[in-house]
Amino acid sequence: MMLGLVCLILGLILNTTQLCDGGVTSSYVRNSLSASPNPEDVDMPLDSDVFRVPHGSNAPQQVHITQGDYEGKGVIISWTTHKHGSKAVHYWAENSRAKRFSVGAVVTYKYYNYTSDYIHHCTIKDLEHDTKYYYKLGSGHAKRVFWFVTPPKPGPDVPYTFGLIGDLGQTYDSNTTLTHYEQNPAKGQAVLFVGDLSYADRYPNHDNNRWDTWGRFSERSVAYQPWIWIAGNHEIDYAPQIGEYQPFVPFTNRYPTPFEASGSGDPLWYSIKRASAHIIVLSSYSGFSKYTPQYRWFTSELKKVKRNETPWLIVLVHAPLYNSYEAHYLEGEGMRVIFEPYFVQYKVDVVFSGHVHSYERSERISNVAYNIVNAQCTPVSDESAPVYITIGDGGNSEGLATEMTQPQPSYSAYREASFGHGIFDIKNRTHAHFGWHRNQDGLAVEGDSLWFINRYWMSKEEASVSAV
Amino acid sequence: MMLGLVCLILGLILNTTQLCDGGVTSSYVRNSLSASPNPEDVDMPLDSDVFRVPHGSNAPQQVHITQGDYEGKGVIISWTTHKHGSKAVHYWAENSRAKRFSVGAVVTYKYYNYTSDYIHHCTIKDLEHDTKYYYKLGSGHAKRVFWFVTPPKPGPDVPYTFGLIGDLGQTYDSNTTLTHYEQNPAKGQAVLFVGDLSYADRYPNHDNNRWDTWGRFSERSVAYQPWIWIAGNHEIDYAPQIGEYQPFVPFTNRYPTPFEASGSGDPLWYSIKRASAHIIVLSSYSGFSKYTPQYRWFTSELKKVKRNETPWLIVLVHAPLYNSYEAHYLEGEGMRVIFEPYFVQYKVDVVFSGHVHSYERSERISNVAYNIVNAQCTPVSDESAPVYITIGDGGNSEGLATEMTQPQPSYSAYREASFGHGIFDIKNRTHAHFGWHRNQDGLAVEGDSLWFINRYWMSKEEASVSAV
Repeated sequence: MMLGLVCLILGLILNTTQLCDGGVTSSYVRNSLSASPNPEDVDMPLDSDVFRVPHGSNAPQQVHITQGDYEGKGVIISWTTHKHGSKAVHYWAENSRAKRFSVGAVVTYKYYNYTSDYIHHCTIKDLEHDTKYYYKLGSGHAKRVFWFVTPPKPGPDVPYTFGLIGDLGQTYDSNTTLTHYEQNPAKGQAVLFVGDLSYADRYPNHDNNRWDTWGRFSERSVAYQPWIWIAGNHEIDYAPQIGEYQPFVPFTNRYPTPFEASGSGDPLWYSIKRASAHIIVLSSYSGFSKYTPQYRWFTSELKKVKRNETPWLIVLVHAPLYNSYEAHYLEGEGMRVIFEPYFVQYKVDVVFSGHVHSYERSERISNVAYNIVNAQCTPVSDESAPVYITIGDGGNSEGLATEMTQPQPSYSAYREASFGHGIFDIKNRTHAHFGWHRNQDGLAVEGDSLWFINRYWMSKEEASVSAV
Repeated sequence: MMLGLVCLILGLILNTTQLCDGGVTSSYVRNSLSASPNPEDVDMPLDSDVFRVPHGSNAPQQVHITQGDYEGKGVIISWTTHKHGSKAVHYWAENSRAKRFSVGAVVTYKYYNYTSDYIHHCTIKDLEHDTKYYYKLGSGHAKRVFWFVTPPKPGPDVPYTFGLIGDLGQTYDSNTTLTHYEQNPAKGQAVLFVGDLSYADRYPNHDNNRWDTWGRFSERSVAYQPWIWIAGNHEIDYAPQIGEYQPFVPFTNRYPTPFEASGSGDPLWYSIKRASAHIIVLSSYSGFSKYTPQYRWFTSELKKVKRNETPWLIVLVHAPLYNSYEAHYLEGEGMRVIFEPYFVQYKVDVVFSGHVHSYERSERISNVAYNIVNAQCTPVSDESAPVYITIGDGGNSEGLATEMTQPQPSYSAYREASFGHGIFDIKNRTHAHFGWHRNQDGLAVEGDSLWFINRYWMSKEEASVSAV
């Protein structure tokens, strides 16, 4: 009552549409059994079957793919071998006898007392759209064959289904999340992975063997469909206490991104087109002030987005700009005050983040009127603003974020501390359906869901209606 | 009147000490004759005497020094030769016959179609405090001798005088500023240079020859007293249109910093002790979110500051956190929302910035109460907060920033659009005097000034008084 009165008075003074009633906080209360300061207590043990090394001498392992170009006709294929091995990828389209091959590059890296195996990266390009390809790695008894399906050519009404996974780690919960995603009847065709992969950095000296186990664990999905990577704080691996000052060394050596294809100079920020979506990946942990390379690239890339070709403008960034959990509260403010005006100006449809180990969906709000002296610093309803979805609930050794700020702020539409994954299912240029799937539910159950009306085409249609 | 009423009401509602009356805006109105979209129109021409190459075959040129260790017993000496040349620095204390030498390293770099000369960097260490040293570079007819004075050993009451220069460039105004500083009877002993050195990036393809001219122009001061460097936006040199994606290449090759001595992993942020000051250099254009290397280094370094040894805690950062000019308004917000709470918690005495080509001094204010939902986003008086001084008024080819936000906000104590420099004159642990010297005035005239009472020792003294 008192809060309502304060809201009303402030609304009158500040002349804003104050949103003074919060959304829904789920009534589920989970035990965070999987949390531990010691990751070995909760991560799957090293002899788990999900970490098993494939059969055969020097067999390729930790196989993973990601988009390899701007438009979806390229794929970067990565794998690891313990000894030197073939750098070639042999590949062929289903129902085609023509086999091709491409030769990649090999990197190794050192991190404290760890030396990596041979990490292979091979980009294959100029594939046909909407085609199933098989690819073969290794040779002799150790050869392994996988497959993937290229996306349809970008176009405004091309349906496409993205999975959303974040902060996955390698606990039993992680395994449950991945299995749940794989079995989801919505059939995600590519994963937008919102950062924090292996959590190897929680081990003494950031034991990079846990990067290897994560690579083997996740292979069963990421060898068959591209995961679009963004870097989280657990990818920084800055550890001055052991002489590791250079950030992002394991991540950038292991998980390449097609940054050059979108004119970026850094693997941590880039964009891709995929079907009817233009996906922009940002880095919470790089410079983003005006004049920085990331800022300049981002503001330039926004101008290149063609909403009549790729209507769905999606931003991925690890640290959420809106969050109402105690964990990491306000941590996205630095980027918010700089980038949020662009999200609104360019009518971004949705911003997916991780970082907070829970689920949250925001209202369409913005907080861009503030100028230091005007006291206008409260989020307000804004139909040009994106929905912010936090989906850092993959399930990792740090456990669930269960503490929430109270009362639920008006910008928060739904929040729940359960592990899970999401599905962003684009139907056409105007409609997409988002569902969040908590691990405890059956395969088709949505714990939270929302129909998205495309921000660009909505206003186009409204304009054409009002012009009639 | 209306504004005052709004302030009063807001103050009652928000329960804060609103500062609703601004400070002083100088009545001087300058022509910004030195501004041009084409830097050649206003920079000193290439055949100016200040750019003259020293006599002698392959003579060392562009000589500059900066502090080379954590405590002031080391100096990094840098210079350039057109051909290979001696890497050695010969040096000796005044009134001493013992000559020593040290051998440095040589780097070259390429930037688009420019290849640098040989850039020498030699760190000499374990010098005596408070001692005049001579140093010799080159050999034969081309040898050159310079000198510098090491600072006294760090201690709480050691007086020391810092010059403040920012955004210098290489116009006639730049020359006037430098001359004015050199002739100032306050006799600055070292310069805190708040970023934006040469403005070479304004030339086609960032013509790096203008880095060389700047090195020769500034030598007359920086060969004799250390300039403490911070990187501004004109040091980024990110230019994708000519294939230059790697930021800070010319700057980091030319202007080394003693970052490793303070446990930093990056030359763009570091700290030094010098006399009674602990100086922390931050990078506006690197990552600074929580978990980034800069954030982790900065928050760790704050804990190491010993105010009973170095009472004066000074932060240097290029983009101001408080600014009331139209130019670059709000550009420091990203860093402010993340770092300002630490400035207040650790009672930073003063934050010097550049970037805005004018002068401004803030009140002691903070704006750290905001939490998204509480509407507390107005700067308030705070005796634990630093004074923010913008001194990007060195005089460069972009000209003066003359447009100011109106009315002058309450956080702004004094602002004036004139070129000039500053002097921060530490007297003892409790008192320091700051003066700002506009170029139009006589040598001893202060256009603005303030006595600083040390934030740490002030509260100590107050505590001891109240304990009596």
